Amino acid sequence: MEKPYVVGIDIGGQTSKIGVVDARGNVLVQTAIRSDNHTEAIPFIDDLSKAVVDLVNQVSSMDHIRGIGIGAPNANYYNGKIYKAVNLKWAKDDEIPFAAYLSERLGVPVVLTNDANAAAMGEMTYGAARGMRNFIMITLGTGVGSGIVINGEVVYGYDGFAGELGHVTVVRENGRLCGCGRKGCLEAYASATGVARTAKEILESTNRDSLLRELPVDKIASKDVYEAAVKGDEVAKEIFEYTGKILGQACADFVAFSAPEAIVMFGGLTRAGDFIMKPTIDNLNESVFPHWRNKVKVIKSDLKESDAAILGASALAW
Amino acid sequence: MEKPYVVGIDIGGQTSKIGVVDARGNVLVQTAIRSDNHTEAIPFIDDLSKAVVDLVNQVSSMDHIRGIGIGAPNANYYNGKIYKAVNLKWAKDDEIPFAAYLSERLGVPVVLTNDANAAAMGEMTYGAARGMRNFIMITLGTGVGSGIVINGEVVYGYDGFAGELGHVTVVRENGRLCGCGRKGCLEAYASATGVARTAKEILESTNRDSLLRELPVDKIASKDVYEAAVKGDEVAKEIFEYTGKILGQACADFVAFSAPEAIVMFGGLTRAGDFIMKPTIDNLNESVFPHWRNKVKVIKSDLKESDAAILGASALAW
Repeated sequence: MEKPYVVGIDIGGQTSKIGVVDARGNVLVQTAIRSDNHTEAIPFIDDLSKAVVDLVNQVSSMDHIRGIGIGAPNANYYNGKIYKAVNLKWAKDDEIPFAAYLSERLGVPVVLTNDANAAAMGEMTYGAARGMRNFIMITLGTGVGSGIVINGEVVYGYDGFAGELGHVTVVRENGRLCGCGRKGCLEAYASATGVARTAKEILESTNRDSLLRELPVDKIASKDVYEAAVKGDEVAKEIFEYTGKILGQACADFVAFSAPEAIVMFGGLTRAGDFIMKPTIDNLNESVFPHWRNKVKVIKSDLKESDAAILGASALAW
Repeated sequence: MEKPYVVGIDIGGQTSKIGVVDARGNVLVQTAIRSDNHTEAIPFIDDLSKAVVDLVNQVSSMDHIRGIGIGAPNANYYNGKIYKAVNLKWAKDDEIPFAAYLSERLGVPVVLTNDANAAAMGEMTYGAARGMRNFIMITLGTGVGSGIVINGEVVYGYDGFAGELGHVTVVRENGRLCGCGRKGCLEAYASATGVARTAKEILESTNRDSLLRELPVDKIASKDVYEAAVKGDEVAKEIFEYTGKILGQACADFVAFSAPEAIVMFGGLTRAGDFIMKPTIDNLNESVFPHWRNKVKVIKSDLKESDAAILGASALAW
């Protein structure tokens, strides 16, 4: 193969991770640059270009790079732009053709998409969804993202922004306020932040004993809830059951939409293992249209978490 | 064009409509046979074959037929079978390769899919969605069906049954029992039957004056509610507002999934015009993820209702 490698770039609010990846999904080398020290896009792209070339030269040369894939918040696959991304100061308008500019600088094709779509590509290319042509990727991190694959292709929709499953309504009456301004979004319940909110709600509205009471209620993170659950704490287990109930019911509706072979879960919350997965699966099967009961796989990503973002982005470039 | 025509067949519980259609969407001739006088599939397919040949011979010959498209309940596009369709006695098992058998009998390709997917194909080929590559078709009849089009193709999913949007959950607490056995399905609210149930609920739980009280409460149909609304009846208008609220909120979630250019409404309930469309559109825009507010078109089918089922089925055959 003349061009045996691709570059994957995961642009986050503070740092951007860059890796050189081979066809088997090995991250040969990786590095990171800051994403938060520019207020304009062009200087950031210049920094990024330089870092890519330096990294590639450690193992090969740009001549052997087939393409570059980028995952970034609010990235638009159709026009190759990143804009209105609240955590990226330099992504403030839609004037900069990010992908085209970087491609011109480096002489290789550049494709970009949002983080969750990149994760779906990574899962399909190297991970738990290898060989699947219809699945839904749900990322359970600070927020809830999604990447939907139908007939082997990521769904972008009419405007490039399809797959905002963190913002379907799961609680219609008195739902929690979400960061997007709506109420009752899945993201307000099934994210790490959502788990912390559930913990606070249960602890403040009851007198039940719990190991979680050893922490200030506003400092409880989903990791603390997991650790308490491992120790057998009933309140902690109930927090995950409630989260899984809401997530499973939402997934039942997603199944009615695209009849996927599997739903693949990724992100911090999945570290809670069966505490979150079991109620999710049980509630999905209880809620789903009878035709699909016990037929749709619900699985965890099997990509190494530290590599997953780079791998996902890189998968775009093949 | 050597083969300028297609045949569209709409298989319903009582009758099956057959039409010969040209490339512009003109139904040149049509006929119907009974679907309910057989308990086995093969004799029904034999009747159907004969009716198709007789009809085609009125305007042309089978040599000029490019293909046959069929819309039928529980039809599977992938394997060409119709099974477990509750209203079709002969469709009781999955043994009969319906499409393959009919194709062999008539010597032309045969494709089948469910009614709502056929309607989506019809809308895309001849109707309100011409030129669109991303839209969602919602059929509001006795039940609620849907056909989802992404990148110009109907979504069938892993098993061929994608697009059961009538069976997403819209009311999670004390939802109405749906024919599918679940509770709170969209179909239990936004169908003609759902409108009748809403009417009964409001009339029985209040003492409000309404023209609808002239009818026995169990006999009220959605048509009666429409006629009362036209006369200015406040209860009737409120019934449609409630229906549109639930439908619009559900559509907001569908938009978050596939970011369609438009949602196209078809079927009996759309005859209520603005009484149903306005609250649907208002609630969609109020509920939807802010990015899509006032951006997604919500339109009515513009196919003639009497031809629509045949046209939809025929569109599969091009």
